[in-house]
Amino acid sequence: MMDKHFLYLTRLGIDTHQEPVVYMREDCHVCRSEGFNAQGRVQICAGDRSIIATLDIVKGDLFSHQKAGLSEAAWLLLKANEGEKATFRHAPPVDSMSHVRGKLYGKPLSEHGAKEIIRDISDGRYSDIQLSAYVTACAASNLNLEETIHITRAMVDVGRHIKWGADRIIVDKHCVGGLPGNRTTPIVVAIVAANGLTMPKTSSRAITSPAGTADTMETLTEVNLGFDRMREVVDQQGGCLAWGGSVALSPSDDIIIRVERALDLDSEGQLVASVISKKVAAGSTHVLIDIPVGPTAKVRSTELAERLAMQLTSTGAALGLSVRTILTDGTQPVGFGIGPALEAYDLLAVLQNKPGASPELRQRALVLAAVLLEMGQACGVGEGMAMASKTLDSGVAWSKFQAICEAQGGLKVPPVAAHKQTLVAHKRGVVAMLNNRVISRLASLAGAPNAPAAGISMHVRLGDVVEAGQALMTLHAEALGELEYALDFYHAHPQILHIEEEVV
Amino acid sequence: MMDKHFLYLTRLGIDTHQEPVVYMREDCHVCRSEGFNAQGRVQICAGDRSIIATLDIVKGDLFSHQKAGLSEAAWLLLKANEGEKATFRHAPPVDSMSHVRGKLYGKPLSEHGAKEIIRDISDGRYSDIQLSAYVTACAASNLNLEETIHITRAMVDVGRHIKWGADRIIVDKHCVGGLPGNRTTPIVVAIVAANGLTMPKTSSRAITSPAGTADTMETLTEVNLGFDRMREVVDQQGGCLAWGGSVALSPSDDIIIRVERALDLDSEGQLVASVISKKVAAGSTHVLIDIPVGPTAKVRSTELAERLAMQLTSTGAALGLSVRTILTDGTQPVGFGIGPALEAYDLLAVLQNKPGASPELRQRALVLAAVLLEMGQACGVGEGMAMASKTLDSGVAWSKFQAICEAQGGLKVPPVAAHKQTLVAHKRGVVAMLNNRVISRLASLAGAPNAPAAGISMHVRLGDVVEAGQALMTLHAEALGELEYALDFYHAHPQILHIEEEVV
Repeated sequence: MMDKHFLYLTRLGIDTHQEPVVYMREDCHVCRSEGFNAQGRVQICAGDRSIIATLDIVKGDLFSHQKAGLSEAAWLLLKANEGEKATFRHAPPVDSMSHVRGKLYGKPLSEHGAKEIIRDISDGRYSDIQLSAYVTACAASNLNLEETIHITRAMVDVGRHIKWGADRIIVDKHCVGGLPGNRTTPIVVAIVAANGLTMPKTSSRAITSPAGTADTMETLTEVNLGFDRMREVVDQQGGCLAWGGSVALSPSDDIIIRVERALDLDSEGQLVASVISKKVAAGSTHVLIDIPVGPTAKVRSTELAERLAMQLTSTGAALGLSVRTILTDGTQPVGFGIGPALEAYDLLAVLQNKPGASPELRQRALVLAAVLLEMGQACGVGEGMAMASKTLDSGVAWSKFQAICEAQGGLKVPPVAAHKQTLVAHKRGVVAMLNNRVISRLASLAGAPNAPAAGISMHVRLGDVVEAGQALMTLHAEALGELEYALDFYHAHPQILHIEEEVV
Repeated sequence: MMDKHFLYLTRLGIDTHQEPVVYMREDCHVCRSEGFNAQGRVQICAGDRSIIATLDIVKGDLFSHQKAGLSEAAWLLLKANEGEKATFRHAPPVDSMSHVRGKLYGKPLSEHGAKEIIRDISDGRYSDIQLSAYVTACAASNLNLEETIHITRAMVDVGRHIKWGADRIIVDKHCVGGLPGNRTTPIVVAIVAANGLTMPKTSSRAITSPAGTADTMETLTEVNLGFDRMREVVDQQGGCLAWGGSVALSPSDDIIIRVERALDLDSEGQLVASVISKKVAAGSTHVLIDIPVGPTAKVRSTELAERLAMQLTSTGAALGLSVRTILTDGTQPVGFGIGPALEAYDLLAVLQNKPGASPELRQRALVLAAVLLEMGQACGVGEGMAMASKTLDSGVAWSKFQAICEAQGGLKVPPVAAHKQTLVAHKRGVVAMLNNRVISRLASLAGAPNAPAAGISMHVRLGDVVEAGQALMTLHAEALGELEYALDFYHAHPQILHIEEEVV
């Protein structure tokens, strides 16, 4: 029976991103005998390995009757070999989708339900359509604290867990995002690690923003470390700046984040689960979370920020983590650059104490580092700011940052964009509003974070007086098409910033 | 500028179902200059035609550098020609997704928002991930009556609208589904049309069930009529049994239904919008809606049924439609067959007054026809049942059914499945419960509705006494793989029916 149902696997080289897709000829004997239909879900077995993939039916002669094609994601997930025999059958229904449906109809997500959903997502059993329904259901229904804890625990369970030794203090920080250019993490890690604390920092890539810390650090050094190398770097330097996806601390998270990004949608509960699960998995004991608040930041009001802070703190506590939160000013972008490489140049300037460095970026990094130094008992309460400032001003933080980058594979020079366009004020006045969301969107359209040199340099801040013709910002793009696309968007969205005439 | 950005289109023959996909080589000049990334959304222009497609990046030599491949859906939507020149750019953001996001965060859907969303869906601008978020958002948040009316009106606006002449009564019926085998529509159309009323019936294909009326009718005649032929059939016969998708009455609906099907998810508001929009578009004036109620039907309680009835009636009224609802018994499947062809054989038996015809199917069809005859003023109030019964018993309904099928392209013999397996009772007892949902799922796994001969023949009804070894049901499948798959499911789901020992 099995033998009649095999086909030889071939790698088609089609990048469908993370969704595994199998391509089968309409007229092949397996499609006919199994009754497969386009967009069905198919289980593929090769040797003792097995995956579930979405089926695309092929008409015509893209490959021979004896073959089935795999997308890149399917190929890698199955660990397939060219020409390897595989068998095919209808994928068993994804039973955990019943928990997603239940949630939509008002049934709270149980611990069991969360476990099943996250296990299936982590195993690649959800199609993109199903992932989107899960993400939407979580966003829609505002997961309560209990549900958030269930999902967090489930996400921890499917990942790896780093153990650093009993009673050892492991500090960490996180920013909930929404504020372009707020790239404090590399500076904070350098200051904290330079003072003897352990800070094994793993960061995500951008969700809906033009850059995540991993995207920025990737322009400076290797971030795709993997579990063992990350451990080596931390043992040697006291800190690291790795891409979280590379150490598989929370494999379900990368899958969920991709769909959130495609939908430009964050779920509060999913955000809490994502943050806390990665901190637990990384073996952290003390975590500081930066929540920027502003009308166009991710968190729009102090009330919402306090609710989120409560959820983060409580979920952390439920998983044995000491979490502190800090509400910061989220009314405008931080620093000058927005986009991976542009933000890298900003943080280098701060670490190197350059005269033109952004005072805001420096100040924010110092405040966060100060709290972490106190939480980690590197100094007494109230002594953190002095210790952090001294570490930065003396160049010790810059030395530590270089040492960490060297340990990760060497310090690189971030790329510079091939195409630039400066945008100017059309009238004299005061910069009265900068819209973080529209600015982020503009940087994304210019190519960030996928094009690392792309993004925006900001030349003005709130309250600045500008003359007609004065530069407001410069667009950076790696491809001309992207520059034009961003320009179109800029001209179509005057609400990106507001210049008010001065009242004399 | 434009000229540097063209590629020649090629049809790859890949069936991605309705999602348009474009395949571009990683190393082609357009990908490089535009900065396209996998799973980005790309606008493709050929001549004066333009579509938006999801991008899959191809590594390697699937086709030459000068070409871009299109999936079947993209090829048909763009009306492309082999070798035609096309230009490519980043797709403009789908602005209407902001209304979907707003809805998720508790903002009611405005008339404007609904219009924009449905227009974009209808124009093929939503990716599968975005469609899934829309469907989930509607299911999650229980659209209120006003929102449902907005969506309904928006769905009417993007489709065609048939005009049958002022003051002409046009009757129609609909069943909200969830009850396997409940295939009354073709019988009702035959009875009503035989009595001089106009009933231009368009039906959907199955959403999450093993057969829709269009699926069943397709085993008997041509249902893919198109606008003009449907009109001809109705002008000639007073009625038709067409697939709604073929007359483009509500083009957005077919797209939404596909995703609901993949998610096994119905949204109440979307259901009301789907039903009412198609009735308005078809030019109906008087509509009867059958709502089966039972613990395992789509509508589980009388309370929910009454709420749905209110929404259907009110939404109909808002769009100028006279709607009546009827709550029917939804505790078990209707008739014997479940699946397109098996249900066709059931309705033929009723129309032909065969001795073995299902009395339940006959009775349900008569009740519905009776109400419609009265609503359409073909008879006085209270005279509908006598008129309907006479039409059926006399063979006039059967003649009318044959005439309609002939007008649609000829009456066919429905197919018979190649593979069958009868399942028997393991003990003596009374059939105390039949689970509609699990039975529907079983029929779907056997291949229905895509394999038209596939499904289930039921041999027992609630209250029947069965002996050990007595046949309960027979599985029908067109492919052996599907039969085995359905058998696995049957054995893994004992809750499909319950046999209780008789209390003496």
